[in-house]
Amino acid sequence: MTRPEGVAAPPTRPRVVIVGGGFGGLYAAKRLGSEPVDVTLVDRRNFHLFQPLLYQTATGMLSVGDIASPLRGILRRHDNVRVLQAEVVDLDVEGRRVLLRDGEIPYDILVLATGSSHHYFGREDWAAAAPGLKTVEDSLRIRRRILVAFEEAERETDPAALHAALTFVVIGSGPTGVEMAGALGELAHATLKRDFRAIDPTSATILLVEAADRILPTLPPQLSEKAARSLARLGVAIRVRTRVIDVRDGVVTLRAGDADEVVRARTILWTAGVKASPLGAILARRTGATLDRGGRVVVGPDLTVPGHAEGTGGSDKPLPGVAPVAMQQGRYVADCILARRRGEAPPPFCYRDKGTMVVIGRNAAVAEIAGWRLSGFAAWIVWVFVHIAYLIEFENKILVLVQWAWNYFTRKRGTRLITGDDPPPEVKA
Amino acid sequence: MTRPEGVAAPPTRPRVVIVGGGFGGLYAAKRLGSEPVDVTLVDRRNFHLFQPLLYQTATGMLSVGDIASPLRGILRRHDNVRVLQAEVVDLDVEGRRVLLRDGEIPYDILVLATGSSHHYFGREDWAAAAPGLKTVEDSLRIRRRILVAFEEAERETDPAALHAALTFVVIGSGPTGVEMAGALGELAHATLKRDFRAIDPTSATILLVEAADRILPTLPPQLSEKAARSLARLGVAIRVRTRVIDVRDGVVTLRAGDADEVVRARTILWTAGVKASPLGAILARRTGATLDRGGRVVVGPDLTVPGHAEGTGGSDKPLPGVAPVAMQQGRYVADCILARRRGEAPPPFCYRDKGTMVVIGRNAAVAEIAGWRLSGFAAWIVWVFVHIAYLIEFENKILVLVQWAWNYFTRKRGTRLITGDDPPPEVKA
Repeated sequence: MTRPEGVAAPPTRPRVVIVGGGFGGLYAAKRLGSEPVDVTLVDRRNFHLFQPLLYQTATGMLSVGDIASPLRGILRRHDNVRVLQAEVVDLDVEGRRVLLRDGEIPYDILVLATGSSHHYFGREDWAAAAPGLKTVEDSLRIRRRILVAFEEAERETDPAALHAALTFVVIGSGPTGVEMAGALGELAHATLKRDFRAIDPTSATILLVEAADRILPTLPPQLSEKAARSLARLGVAIRVRTRVIDVRDGVVTLRAGDADEVVRARTILWTAGVKASPLGAILARRTGATLDRGGRVVVGPDLTVPGHAEGTGGSDKPLPGVAPVAMQQGRYVADCILARRRGEAPPPFCYRDKGTMVVIGRNAAVAEIAGWRLSGFAAWIVWVFVHIAYLIEFENKILVLVQWAWNYFTRKRGTRLITGDDPPPEVKA
Repeated sequence: MTRPEGVAAPPTRPRVVIVGGGFGGLYAAKRLGSEPVDVTLVDRRNFHLFQPLLYQTATGMLSVGDIASPLRGILRRHDNVRVLQAEVVDLDVEGRRVLLRDGEIPYDILVLATGSSHHYFGREDWAAAAPGLKTVEDSLRIRRRILVAFEEAERETDPAALHAALTFVVIGSGPTGVEMAGALGELAHATLKRDFRAIDPTSATILLVEAADRILPTLPPQLSEKAARSLARLGVAIRVRTRVIDVRDGVVTLRAGDADEVVRARTILWTAGVKASPLGAILARRTGATLDRGGRVVVGPDLTVPGHAEGTGGSDKPLPGVAPVAMQQGRYVADCILARRRGEAPPPFCYRDKGTMVVIGRNAAVAEIAGWRLSGFAAWIVWVFVHIAYLIEFENKILVLVQWAWNYFTRKRGTRLITGDDPPPEVKA
C-alpha cells in the first residue's frame, strides 16, 4: 500500500475531508468555505436533510423536497469546497486516507460528522415491525404505513382487525415520539375526519409508550404535563412506566409493573433511541480511542481524538444528538482548523444550550428557552419561526411556510400520498 | 358464483363504479358528486396525479407532492362518492361486478377510465434500459438516473466512460420527449452549471431521437421549427428520420437511412409511445367489443361499448391520450349517466380541441390554441397559467407557482434529490 502523495510534506493549503453532510458537516464546510483550505465533503446522499421536520413528511404535511437541499447547491459558491457522493468504508489513520467503497481520498485533517441511526438496544430484529425515522426513505415508508392502515380499515369488516388497523403505537416519548404522536392525532382528528365513508378516523387509538415516569423526561415536569394535556386533546393515550418487551409484526407486548398487555396494532413506530454511526467504532479501533455506551467516540475538550489533533469527531461530555449541538460543533471544528493554521491554540468547545422545543399540534407546543418555559400558542409560534429560520435554502423556507399556513387554516395535509411502492403490476389482458 | 344482490332489481339510486382516478375518472366523479347516484371511485393509488407535469418532478423542478393530490381529499365534500384503493383484476359483465384482487363491487353503471402505459411496440425488453414516464415512481427513478449520471461523471477518469455518463438520449419527440429534452438542457446549462469541480455540465450531450422527419410531428411544421431552435439553444441535438433499432443498458443503436450509429449513453429515456391499459382488452373480451392497434376499446358515439349502454370506456375515433380529452370525456360520461336517468338521449361526444402546448425551457414554448400559433415567451406564459389553472388543489397551485417563480429567477431546481434507493447499508464497525 503506497502512501498517497503529499502526506510527508503537506501542501500549503491543507486538505480537509469532512465525512457527513448533516448539520455538523455542513456547518463546518460552510465555515471553511472561501478560507485557505481545500475541503472535500463526502456524503452517501447528494442532499442535506433537515431531520427535525422529518416527522412532518412521515405524516403527510410536507414533501421530501421541502426539507432536503442538494449539497452541491448549498456549497456552489465556495470554489474551495468539493462535494463527493460516495460511501466511506474505512479509515487509514496512519496513511491519512479515507477509504471509499470505490476509491480513496487523502487528507491532512479529517472531520467525522456521521450522525446517528436507530438504536434498538440489542433488539435489531424489531426494526422491521417497528421502523424508526432517520432517512427520507424511512419517512416515506412510515407515511405509506400510516395511510395504508386507514385505507385498509375502510374496507375491513372483522371488528378485531379493524381495531388493529386503527391502532398506532409510538414507542419512546422524547421530542420525536411526542411530535409523531401529536401529528398522528391531528391526522385522525382533523385531516382525515371527512375522508372516509365506512370508518370514523377519530376513533383511532394512538398509544404513546414511555419507560420513564413521564413523557419528555429530559424536559422540566411542568412541560411534560402541558404536553400530555395537549396530546390528550388530540386523542393520544399515554402509557408511562411501561416497557416494551416484545415487538412482532402487528403486535406489541407492553409491561407496566407486573402486568403484561398485548396490543394488536398495524402501525408500530420506534423513536426510543439513537446510536452513533458505525464509523465512530472504526475510528476508535484505528486510533485506540474509547467509545461510550451509545457508540460515540470519547474526544478531548477540542473535540479531537486524543493524540490525533488532525482528526475530530464525537463530543466531549455526552451532549444530546440534536441539530443545535451538531451546528455548533461543526462551526467550532472549522474555527479550530483555521486557528491552528494561524498557530493559535483553540479554546475548548462549549455548548450553548439555546433550549428545547417540541410541537404537539396546531397552536400547541412546549419549549424551554434560556430558562424560560413556554407552552401553547406562544411556544408554537416560536417553534414555527425558529424552524423556518434554520431551513437551509430560501426556497424551502417559502415552501414550508406556505404549506404550514395552508395546513393551519385547512388542516388538509396535501402530501398524504402513498408512494414508493410501485403499483402492483398490471393485470394481463 | 352467486349473483350479488340488487342486480335483478337495481336500487333507485344507480350504483356507478368508476375505475381510475386520472383526469377522466376524477372529472366524471366530480360531475356526479352530490347527484342522485352512488359513486365508487376505484384506483390502485390513493392520489390523482397531474401527469402533464411529471417530467418536472423527473428533472428536479417540483416535488411529487406538488403534482399529486389525495383522491379522498378532492372528493371529501361529496357524500355520495366513495373512494376505494384497490386493484381491479377482471370484469363480470353479465353479473355486473368489478372483480378486485381482494373482493368485488357490484355496479349498475361502469365507467372505465384506466388510462395508458408505455408502449415499446413489442420490445418490452427495452423497458429496463430505457424507462418511460407514467408514475410517480417512474419520475423519481428517472430523476435518480439523471442526477447519478452527473455524480458519476464528476468522479470518472476514463474519457469514454465520462462521455457516456454525460450522454442523455431521449427517444420520441412528442410533447413529453421535447419537454424532457428541454428540461435536461436547462439542467445541464443552467441549474448545474456551477455545481461541479471536475466536469463541465454544459458539455453534456443530449440527443432527441425521432423517426419522423421533424420533431413534434402532430403540430404544424412552423412550430416544430421554433421548438427545434429553442432546443438547440439549450444544447439539445436533434436526430430526425432516425429509428431506434436496439437498446441495451447504456447503449442505444440508431439507424438513419442505411447508417447505423452506436451511442454509449448512461441515461436513455423512452417517450415514444403509449398503449391503453390492459383492462380495455379484458372489457373487449367480456363484451365482444373490438380493440384498435393501441389496445383501445372501439366505442360508440356516446363512448359506450356497443350493446352495453351501462358501461363506457375508450373513445370513438382515435383521439390523443392527453389530459384535455380525458377531462372532457369524464364530464361527458357523467352527463350521459344523468341524462339517461332523466330519460333523455345524450348527444354524441364531441371533443373540443383547445390546442396543444409544449414548453421547452424558461421563456420558451410553442403552442397552437384555437388555430393561433404562439411561440417563445407568449406561449410560455400561457402554458404556465393554463397548467396552474388545472392543478386540482389550491395549495398545489401556490406551491408550483412559488417554485416556478423561484426557478425562473435562480434556475436552481431545489428538488434535484437522489432518493428512493435506501442508502447502502452502513458499514459494520
